[in-house]
Amino acid sequence: MRDIHQIVPVSLGDRSYDIHIGPGLLAKSGELVADVLPPGARAAVVTDENVARYHLDSVLASMEAFGIGATVVRVPAGEPSKCYPTLQDVVERILDARLERGDAVIALGGGVIGDLAGFAAAIARRGMRFVQMPTSLLAQVDSSVGGKTGINSPHGKNLVGAFYQPQLVLADTDALDTLPDREFRAGYAEVVKYGLIDRPDFFAWLERQWPAIRAGGPERINAIAESCRAKSAVVARDERETGDRALLNLGHTFGHALEAAAKFDPEIIVHGEGVAIGMVMAHEFSARMNLASPDDAKRVAAHLETAGLPTNLNGLKAVAGNADRMLDFIAQDKKVTRGALNFILTRGIGQAFVARDVPASEVHAYLAGAIGE
Amino acid sequence: MRDIHQIVPVSLGDRSYDIHIGPGLLAKSGELVADVLPPGARAAVVTDENVARYHLDSVLASMEAFGIGATVVRVPAGEPSKCYPTLQDVVERILDARLERGDAVIALGGGVIGDLAGFAAAIARRGMRFVQMPTSLLAQVDSSVGGKTGINSPHGKNLVGAFYQPQLVLADTDALDTLPDREFRAGYAEVVKYGLIDRPDFFAWLERQWPAIRAGGPERINAIAESCRAKSAVVARDERETGDRALLNLGHTFGHALEAAAKFDPEIIVHGEGVAIGMVMAHEFSARMNLASPDDAKRVAAHLETAGLPTNLNGLKAVAGNADRMLDFIAQDKKVTRGALNFILTRGIGQAFVARDVPASEVHAYLAGAIGE
Repeated sequence: MRDIHQIVPVSLGDRSYDIHIGPGLLAKSGELVADVLPPGARAAVVTDENVARYHLDSVLASMEAFGIGATVVRVPAGEPSKCYPTLQDVVERILDARLERGDAVIALGGGVIGDLAGFAAAIARRGMRFVQMPTSLLAQVDSSVGGKTGINSPHGKNLVGAFYQPQLVLADTDALDTLPDREFRAGYAEVVKYGLIDRPDFFAWLERQWPAIRAGGPERINAIAESCRAKSAVVARDERETGDRALLNLGHTFGHALEAAAKFDPEIIVHGEGVAIGMVMAHEFSARMNLASPDDAKRVAAHLETAGLPTNLNGLKAVAGNADRMLDFIAQDKKVTRGALNFILTRGIGQAFVARDVPASEVHAYLAGAIGE
Repeated sequence: MRDIHQIVPVSLGDRSYDIHIGPGLLAKSGELVADVLPPGARAAVVTDENVARYHLDSVLASMEAFGIGATVVRVPAGEPSKCYPTLQDVVERILDARLERGDAVIALGGGVIGDLAGFAAAIARRGMRFVQMPTSLLAQVDSSVGGKTGINSPHGKNLVGAFYQPQLVLADTDALDTLPDREFRAGYAEVVKYGLIDRPDFFAWLERQWPAIRAGGPERINAIAESCRAKSAVVARDERETGDRALLNLGHTFGHALEAAAKFDPEIIVHGEGVAIGMVMAHEFSARMNLASPDDAKRVAAHLETAGLPTNLNGLKAVAGNADRMLDFIAQDKKVTRGALNFILTRGIGQAFVARDVPASEVHAYLAGAIGE
């Protein structure tokens, strides 16, 4: 087996762990999982049908080969599984299997599975061991670092959950070949985000390497590893999101508002697409505020377009409605602190910063222009 | 106002907090709560009808006087509220009120309210600020230290939850005068427990001071403060219950089995009564294993009897059934590690220790004798 895999350590004191990134990791998952569990430990593998079809047998075989007895907990694929009833169901099935605190909950799947299984791991017996096997690009570069777990509330997405760190993350880069093309491209928006936050050289490298990343191989591994290193550096500074971690929301304020305006219908827009548009808008808005050059916004849009991502509101104007409506969605976003509008703005590529007390009137004027009112 | 209140610091690094213990604290809660919240913060006060009747107005008035706007979240009194649907209801009502991470969830009530509200605080917005105002003796000396929160599962009590520390605990010792006599006495069993674990001088002091503690006054404050100090010392050594913290389960293995045998019907036995009987049994069993003198078991039983607590299986034999049945309940207890029977045994008063691999046959023989088979 090729062994070109990279290991990215996430340093969080006694909650530190390693992210392994490389090809074929699911097929050798048993060995790596056994390393972080006590002897005789068992596991619950939480997954959905789509992922199970491609990867479950290989994971179970490898676990069995290393003496880890596993119970499979299947949930329906898709965002609606991030809800109270499914959470309860997953927790109860973990308890049904008589798993103990030293046993592991394994999330095998994309972001939904990671968030749901991680939250179940956090609360079953007040906290069990947790291993992530993210199978989507978005999950590999985003949810595998930072410990955010949770479900959705009728009041909004991810409003119920826990900060809970895994013992181990296995990001199998071959698994991404089973993703729909649109999902791969959407996940790539988050890769680009790390370059835009504080790694201008990484962004320039991505501009050159996108075709190789899409094709697979060492460039893909490197893009994912660098993303994990970038997120890890931010999270290590601010584990519980009281300050700098907000930088990770670059593009998310506008992006979330668009997703919400589309009622989170993936037929209309998926998360990464919202982030892609949101990042271009954050650069445009920063240029409007005379913080950055308009050329940076154009350069960002050009690369995201090359990667097949949407970069403006064309085609979404009916969804967005008008500036008032978009501002309402922005104000409802949980990242609003005490009524003030916080935004991630930028002074240029790789120079993002947390801006507090951004005037709502400026945001409104920018949105009205972008929508073409 | 008398100011003889004591402050017990709980040292858990960046999760450290103070427990205030004394008379009249609920009436001045606003001032103390304002000290630990950011300016402008609001609160959700979670409580039940029984507690609200005596204490809610006084807390709300004090909060208002210090500028803390409060939403009241009422739940039905009693253990059945520690369930998934009520948890969801509490979380959603916190979100309804648009409370943010810097706002506080306040638990005003006994152990059920503390466990439920604390768990809601842990998971709403992935963790809000949390303040405990325990109004039962059990809650003041037990759940106010250690950060255990949670609900019950069909598989057992407290199987779903989080370790989540409050910012502040206010134990108003006057509030205990509104408790039913039986509940006060049951809570006192946990006070005695701290003496039996590792504070023989405290146990001897309790033997002398019980009447004054029951009557109220400085001895009551001191008994509660010393209990909090004792628990705090154990928890500081082992926040997430991987080792020494198990000492706090002295009396709980037999006690839980009795509670379970009674289907947790408080008409038959309440938690503190189970612990009282369980502590005597732990001392008797330790004597049977030649670890301790039988005189210690007698001395423990004598004091608990003086405090009006049950100390043996007389009157509970039909509930207990036989030794096989009791052993089954013990084995189902979540404190079993990988099938081995762990017990808290003792070498004498104030000399408890964690015993691993206790032979089930010895436990069976002891139980058969105690039940009188």
